[in-house]
Amino acid sequence: MEEVQEQSKNALKKAEKQAKAAAAKAAKATAVPAAGGKGKKGDDSKEIIGITVSKEGNFSQWYQEVVIKAELVEYYTEIAGFYILRPAAMHVWKAIRAWFDERIEAMGVEETSFPMFLSSKSLEKEKEHVEGFAPELAWVTKAGDKDLEFPVAVRPTSEAVMYPYYAKWIRSHRDLPFRLNQWNSVVRWEAKQTTPFLRAREFLWQEGHTAHLTEALAHEEVLQILELYAGVYEQLLAVPVVRGKKTENEKFAGGYWTSTCEAYIPTNGRGIQGATSHALGQNFSKMFEITVEDPEKNRVNVWQNSWGLSTRVIGVMVMLHGDDKGLVLPPRVSRIQVVLLPVGLTAKMSQEDKDKHMIHVKELGSSLKKAGVRVHIDDREGYTPGYKFADWELKGVPIRLEFGPKDAAASVVSYARRDTGAKGTIPIAELSTQVPQLLETLQQDLYNKADEAFRSHRLVLTDWEKVIPALDSRNVVLMPFCEAVACEERIKELTKSEEGAIGLDGLKQPSMGMKSLCIPFEQPKDDGLVLGETKCLNPECSALAKSWTMFGRSY
Amino acid sequence: MEEVQEQSKNALKKAEKQAKAAAAKAAKATAVPAAGGKGKKGDDSKEIIGITVSKEGNFSQWYQEVVIKAELVEYYTEIAGFYILRPAAMHVWKAIRAWFDERIEAMGVEETSFPMFLSSKSLEKEKEHVEGFAPELAWVTKAGDKDLEFPVAVRPTSEAVMYPYYAKWIRSHRDLPFRLNQWNSVVRWEAKQTTPFLRAREFLWQEGHTAHLTEALAHEEVLQILELYAGVYEQLLAVPVVRGKKTENEKFAGGYWTSTCEAYIPTNGRGIQGATSHALGQNFSKMFEITVEDPEKNRVNVWQNSWGLSTRVIGVMVMLHGDDKGLVLPPRVSRIQVVLLPVGLTAKMSQEDKDKHMIHVKELGSSLKKAGVRVHIDDREGYTPGYKFADWELKGVPIRLEFGPKDAAASVVSYARRDTGAKGTIPIAELSTQVPQLLETLQQDLYNKADEAFRSHRLVLTDWEKVIPALDSRNVVLMPFCEAVACEERIKELTKSEEGAIGLDGLKQPSMGMKSLCIPFEQPKDDGLVLGETKCLNPECSALAKSWTMFGRSY
Repeated sequence: MEEVQEQSKNALKKAEKQAKAAAAKAAKATAVPAAGGKGKKGDDSKEIIGITVSKEGNFSQWYQEVVIKAELVEYYTEIAGFYILRPAAMHVWKAIRAWFDERIEAMGVEETSFPMFLSSKSLEKEKEHVEGFAPELAWVTKAGDKDLEFPVAVRPTSEAVMYPYYAKWIRSHRDLPFRLNQWNSVVRWEAKQTTPFLRAREFLWQEGHTAHLTEALAHEEVLQILELYAGVYEQLLAVPVVRGKKTENEKFAGGYWTSTCEAYIPTNGRGIQGATSHALGQNFSKMFEITVEDPEKNRVNVWQNSWGLSTRVIGVMVMLHGDDKGLVLPPRVSRIQVVLLPVGLTAKMSQEDKDKHMIHVKELGSSLKKAGVRVHIDDREGYTPGYKFADWELKGVPIRLEFGPKDAAASVVSYARRDTGAKGTIPIAELSTQVPQLLETLQQDLYNKADEAFRSHRLVLTDWEKVIPALDSRNVVLMPFCEAVACEERIKELTKSEEGAIGLDGLKQPSMGMKSLCIPFEQPKDDGLVLGETKCLNPECSALAKSWTMFGRSY
Repeated sequence: MEEVQEQSKNALKKAEKQAKAAAAKAAKATAVPAAGGKGKKGDDSKEIIGITVSKEGNFSQWYQEVVIKAELVEYYTEIAGFYILRPAAMHVWKAIRAWFDERIEAMGVEETSFPMFLSSKSLEKEKEHVEGFAPELAWVTKAGDKDLEFPVAVRPTSEAVMYPYYAKWIRSHRDLPFRLNQWNSVVRWEAKQTTPFLRAREFLWQEGHTAHLTEALAHEEVLQILELYAGVYEQLLAVPVVRGKKTENEKFAGGYWTSTCEAYIPTNGRGIQGATSHALGQNFSKMFEITVEDPEKNRVNVWQNSWGLSTRVIGVMVMLHGDDKGLVLPPRVSRIQVVLLPVGLTAKMSQEDKDKHMIHVKELGSSLKKAGVRVHIDDREGYTPGYKFADWELKGVPIRLEFGPKDAAASVVSYARRDTGAKGTIPIAELSTQVPQLLETLQQDLYNKADEAFRSHRLVLTDWEKVIPALDSRNVVLMPFCEAVACEERIKELTKSEEGAIGLDGLKQPSMGMKSLCIPFEQPKDDGLVLGETKCLNPECSALAKSWTMFGRSY
């Protein structure tokens, strides 16, 4: 995210001014409430602070405002780099957890819970792997006012915590496959700028650690899990991803190979790593002496995998679907799918008529609940419908239903979609079938829109000169690549834009170079790459291309 | 648990010898496998190490062997006082989590996730509350090789982490009730001896923190939650509990009053605190300035509650139901409810007949699965049925089903209950109805047996001279009590047994004094306590009794 901030700092003043003017106008019109709680305490007045910048105009600030004001997170001001996950975010995470857990349980993965601390002793066992984490380890050196004899580190990931016990528990090929997963939080004391969900010093994730008898069996699982990760993005979060393999340069240190699913943020054309499933090979099983007797009585090292999915997924979802009004939540993960508002209750109406109408509203709510819809009735008094509309739009609730005396007279309920703003009416008699359908349509439309954006910005290039202009127009590129580490490093250098370059959209582009996102499993067809003939696209490289590799500016 | 160890160290040698002889005999007969993995690596032989002591003979060692050998936990040898929760334990915890979560969600409690660290600054805000935890705080003082400017402590509980944000988020009476819960782990770097589940330096729990407009509303919730905690014990774990209020001496420091459910361990006659639900009153809301404007526009401090249930529940379940063969799991929380074993496949049988029989076994398994039973088919080769029987008994699986050619000929399946050892047959045609019934019967019988034990060892006493003999006979006692802190401290002193006293059961008794467990909500009836007339039972106390209070030796 540091680059987003760089971008934002340098964003054209014109765009900023436009955005501010628009925000001020919007605020005047709708009186959006202070969801972030910045207003004076105990003062119930409707403060005018919706999202104050446009998504296009200042993406970084937009993101930070959305996650706070839609009540996904709160900054933990006591300690920098930490965030509080609020119920709207936890609902998304719980939905993901339930979906993923059900599927890995069916595969035979079991849940475990290892301690959060690592001893300095076990860290020394696997120096190579730990080296990358060393600068980010949080060290407990004292208990009460006594110094610990041996300091302990909070886990940044659990290989060194778990694998000594794998060596103890796994004794025969009959114990394989051996598969454990845990849901926990890990701590990486990042020096870099932190951002809610995308980079935090503590984050929630699941980490699966498995052992297999053969490379082939391990390989199969790596891809099964990757498909589940892709499912979390595509089926729950409406985020399309490209499945592939990481290059040597980008794979998990100490592993064998890494599979990944990569998402795309249209607003700035960046790629973002979704989740990774690693084949660890036998590196760790040699380090930790995890061996079994195979059916032929040979003692062999097991083949291991590890795979993790973190709350980063929520950040990707926010960045992709949100708009200038705030958050847009895919129905399948939204805590509230439908907000139902009584409207049109004028001062002229008798209290009896009002009460009658409210009973009717509650009946509608009950029938939706029965149909399995997560509905919330907003019957708060003292707020105008316009204020409430803006409030629920800010919070990303997929569908707003309005029900007033006119609707009652016509036996319909009026609706508005959060994603498109489209409005219409639904006959009351069909409410419990049409609303679930509409939610599914909205879910699918969110996905289709994002998929179209990703597909149209994945450019297959065979001309090096087109690479930087493609990046500056918010594309990721697929190009013939030799897959060599040094070549990839050089490509990063070569694709840095000049400071202050203006993209086709009239906005200043970030100057960062591109890196490889993945080698997609689905390679472009009929596009002229002949293995053993086509050269790597890097003009300074004379090696032959091994694949179409997807490159891009990225998080 | 330190007292259990004290008891164990001093236990009569006779009992120990008896136990050892019995264990050796049992081991010879059944060849129980080395579930704890102590055997030689890669050596698949059946080592003779089931539970080596009897539950009565050496309760402390029995407990430690059961939790390891039944694969509930593994000691984390890298750092003292930490334990690994293995899948069999995590299954119990997940079942509890799902049951409890469903019910608090229905109450309107929402899930959240706060950071695991506390700044030293926020700690200073609530010194009184923190004082009790101070000696047990784990302090992070370094990140990588750099000293932190301000050390941070790992949460021992989250009041000081959460309440500053309650002050920010709660602004009006319309925000109430405000209820958040989180499932996490907390760290208390205990100096005392640790024991799996009962006392660990890190443990899993849920912590609910809520705010209400009035004392009455807060009070109502305290009791609702307590009833859910009692439900976890009684309905899931088959552990009867007594609901009540803690005395001033035993309540949560800094709180207003504490409700509790208390369990009882017949083997040593000890009480054990099950879970507590605290009315915090306005203490914290004054400390953290959590105020709202009430409907009459007065600014008032909110009334808060907090409530927590930890993995201790699993330890109580193990201690209560286990026997000399190992763990006994209540069906509702057992990962495997039924183990199905093919038996009677002799060397004389043709391979074709064996294959046919195994297909039949798998069909039985499928029909049980369809009936919602968590069944596991143990078709391991190279192990005798006797070995397998002992293995599954050790692991506590509620029902064992055996199916051999003779059963097939009679169209029945043979069963054995883990709790009573009772055996019988079930017609195949009724398997999918009778097995679920049997599981429910077993669940209920476990509860009834424990309930009977608790009820018959809750002695209502009005004669001080009978107190110590009652304790020495493994009872807890209900007696008239003035509820004063000093009197309670004195009672603890007065009830210490002489070192080496022998109880009615011929075993040496622990010398610890008794403390109050709770003031039961359900008071004994017609037992001669007249408020305002009856004196506190402590012979040195001249105050009047306020209630029947339950006292006991305890964990």
